[in-house]
Amino acid sequence: MVSAATLTAGSAGLVETRHLDLPEPVRLDSGRELHPVRVAYETYGTLSPRRDNVILVCHALSGDAHAAGVSAVQPEASTRDGFAAEDRDGTAGQALGWWDGMIGPGKAFDTDEFFVVSTNLLGGCRGTTGPSSTDPATGEPYGPDFPVLTVADMVRTERAFLDALGVERLAAVAGGSLGGMQALEWAVSYPDQVDSVVVIASTHALHPQGMAWNAIARESIMRDPDWQGGRYYGTGRDPDAGMGVARMVGHVTYLSAPALNDKFGRRLQFSDDIRYTIAEPEFEVESYLRHQADSFVKRFDANTYLTMSRALTYFDLARQYGGGSLERALESVRARTLLIAFSSDWLYPPVASEEIHAALGALGRPTELHVIDAPYGHDCFLLEEARQTPIVRRFLAGP
Amino acid sequence: MVSAATLTAGSAGLVETRHLDLPEPVRLDSGRELHPVRVAYETYGTLSPRRDNVILVCHALSGDAHAAGVSAVQPEASTRDGFAAEDRDGTAGQALGWWDGMIGPGKAFDTDEFFVVSTNLLGGCRGTTGPSSTDPATGEPYGPDFPVLTVADMVRTERAFLDALGVERLAAVAGGSLGGMQALEWAVSYPDQVDSVVVIASTHALHPQGMAWNAIARESIMRDPDWQGGRYYGTGRDPDAGMGVARMVGHVTYLSAPALNDKFGRRLQFSDDIRYTIAEPEFEVESYLRHQADSFVKRFDANTYLTMSRALTYFDLARQYGGGSLERALESVRARTLLIAFSSDWLYPPVASEEIHAALGALGRPTELHVIDAPYGHDCFLLEEARQTPIVRRFLAGP
Repeated sequence: MVSAATLTAGSAGLVETRHLDLPEPVRLDSGRELHPVRVAYETYGTLSPRRDNVILVCHALSGDAHAAGVSAVQPEASTRDGFAAEDRDGTAGQALGWWDGMIGPGKAFDTDEFFVVSTNLLGGCRGTTGPSSTDPATGEPYGPDFPVLTVADMVRTERAFLDALGVERLAAVAGGSLGGMQALEWAVSYPDQVDSVVVIASTHALHPQGMAWNAIARESIMRDPDWQGGRYYGTGRDPDAGMGVARMVGHVTYLSAPALNDKFGRRLQFSDDIRYTIAEPEFEVESYLRHQADSFVKRFDANTYLTMSRALTYFDLARQYGGGSLERALESVRARTLLIAFSSDWLYPPVASEEIHAALGALGRPTELHVIDAPYGHDCFLLEEARQTPIVRRFLAGP
Repeated sequence: MVSAATLTAGSAGLVETRHLDLPEPVRLDSGRELHPVRVAYETYGTLSPRRDNVILVCHALSGDAHAAGVSAVQPEASTRDGFAAEDRDGTAGQALGWWDGMIGPGKAFDTDEFFVVSTNLLGGCRGTTGPSSTDPATGEPYGPDFPVLTVADMVRTERAFLDALGVERLAAVAGGSLGGMQALEWAVSYPDQVDSVVVIASTHALHPQGMAWNAIARESIMRDPDWQGGRYYGTGRDPDAGMGVARMVGHVTYLSAPALNDKFGRRLQFSDDIRYTIAEPEFEVESYLRHQADSFVKRFDANTYLTMSRALTYFDLARQYGGGSLERALESVRARTLLIAFSSDWLYPPVASEEIHAALGALGRPTELHVIDAPYGHDCFLLEEARQTPIVRRFLAGP
C-alpha cells in the first residue's frame, strides 16, 4: 500500500505522471498472464483519511494518464483529441490534460472534494505495460507477442493498481468512449466496490459500422509493410503511413458531418482555384486530415492502437455476461449509473445509452440518462465540458 | 459518323464492350490536351432513324461501360457494387451489367423505346483511355503523368464520343453518384443538346465529410509503397494493400449503419467465442470487408481510382459556373430535371438534391424530386431498382 502522503497531488506546479509496478501478475481473459505490469498514473486532489473519495477516470483509445493539469511535455505529445480541444493546446513545451475541463477545483470531477485517479490503460504506450514494453521472456519488445486484451483485462489491471494504492472502494468510475466501457465493466465485475459510474458517449457493444471503422484502421496499420508483422521496434521504420490513415479514419468518425462543414466547408487551401493535383491537398479539410495524421504518429504506438481497437470491438456486455441479454448482463450492477450521450455522435449514438438505461431501469437500478443536443459528434465528450459539468456534479452529489 | 446499323445492339446473346477512337484531341480544364483517346462503350436497344431516342447512362467511381446485359467476363470483374447487388452476381464466367435492373425492355430505361449508350469514363481502366494507357510521348503507361481530370472533362469526352457516333441530341442523360454529377454537368454545359437529366443519389458538390472519405482513400493508395509514385505498371507490384483499404472505406460509406447491422450484427465469423486475434477477422463484418477489398483490387486500377476520386471531389457547380451561387450556375439549364435521393444515403444525402430542386424551381425550370425512403444507404441507387423504375418511366414519358 502506498502512503496517503505520496498520493496527494502536488501544488500548482506542473503535473507529473508517476509509475507503479503491480506486485502480482495480471490474469487475462485469453488465459494468459502478464508480468511484470507497470502502471502509469496521475492523481488530482487529496485522498480522504477514510480513502472513500476516489474517482477513477478512464481514458479512450488514444489517451493516457495525463487527464488534467499541465505537464511538462511537448504539445505534439498531447492526447487531447478533437479540433476544438486541439485549438486550445499549444502552450510552448506544455500540454493540458485530455479532460482538464472536467477535472479540477469546482469542475465536474471536483478535486476540492474528490481524489481523482487516472491511469494509462494496460496495453498502452504512455507508461503502462504494452506491446512496446520489454517481454521478459526475450528481452525484446513484445510486439505481436503481447497478449490480445479485453476491456475486462484493462479493468482487472485498474483493480490491481488500486489495490496496490490501498484503495478498495470507488466513489465513481468515469470515462467516455472506451473509458465508458471500462466504467460499465467495473459496475458489472466489481459491483460491491463501485458506488457510481459515469458513462459518457459510450456503449454496451459497438455497432457493426463502428466495428467496420475499427477494422479498417487496423487493416491500414497491418498492411503497412513497415509494420513488419508488429516487429518494427528498433528497426528505424515505423508504420507511420498506415497509422496516419487509421488516424484519419478515426478522426472523421469522431466528428459530425455538420461540424466538418462548419469548420472547413469546401474552402480551398492554397489559392483561389484548384491546382489540378492529386498528390497534394487542395481543400482545407484535406490538409487538416494530413496534419492530424502527422501529429498522431509522433505520439502513439501502432501496436497499442491495434490492441485498443481490438478490445473495444470485442466489448459486448450481453455476450460476455448475459448469454446475449443486456438486461441479464447488468443484473449484478449495484452502482448508481449516469449515462450521457450526444445527439450528433454517430460512432457511439445515443441509442446505445438508451438501451443501457432501459435495461437498468427494468432491473430497478438507479439510472439517469442525458442526451445532450450538441453538434460536434463523438468528440463532444471532450468538448462539451460546460454542459456536462452540472449534470455530473449533481449526480456525484448523491441521490 | 458510325452507321446506325453498327449501333444496333446485338441479339439476345452476350453483350460485348466496343471501342471507338476519338478523331480529335480532348481539351481539358487543366489546359492540357489528351490524344489519342479511345472510348469503351456498350449500347442497348435500337437507334431511331431520326437519332432522337438516345439516353446516355453515366457510371460512378468504380463502374465501366458494361451497364446492362450479360457479358462474357469473370464474375470478379463485375462492377456491380453493393452487397445485395453482389449477391445476385456470380453466374460462372458471366457478369451482369451494373445497372441491369434499370436498363432493358420494359425497364426504367426502356430499350424497346430508347437507345441506351454507356461509356467507360475518361480516366477509366476498363477500355477508355486512362492512367494505365500508353502515353504516346513515352511509349510507357501514363501513370502519374496522366492529366488530373474534372467531371467537365469526362462530359466533354462523352460529347466528342457522341459526335463521332453521329448523335447530336440526347433524350436524357442519367446516372447515380459521380454519374449524376455528369448528368448535371451535361445540363449546364450543353443546355441545347439535352432534353432531360436523371440525377440519382448525387449532388452539386460533395460535402466536406464526403471529401474527407475520398481524401482518406487516396492517401491510403498513395501511402502504399507499391504505388511507387504512380509508376507501378509492369513492376509486378501493385498498391493492392492501399487500394484494399480505400475500397473498405468507400464500401462502408456506400452503406447505411442500419443496413450493416441488419446484415451482420455482431456475429462472430468462425466460432462461438472470440479467438483473441488481431491479425485475423473475428466478426462477419470484418471478413466481409476483407473480401470486398480483395475482389476490388483484382478488377480496378489504383491510378484510375485516384483520378475519379479527385474529379468527384472537385465537382462544384456553384464554384465552377456560379461564382459561388448554385442558382446562378444552373441558369443555363434547359433540360427537364428528375432528382432521386434516398433517405439513408449519408454520402450523398437528400439535402443536396433538395438544394438543386430549389434552385431550379426558383429559376422556373421544370424539376421533380423524389426522396425514396429506403435503408441501404448510397447503394440504393443500384439496389432500389423497382422503386425507381415507375418514377423514371413516368418522367421519361414526358410532361
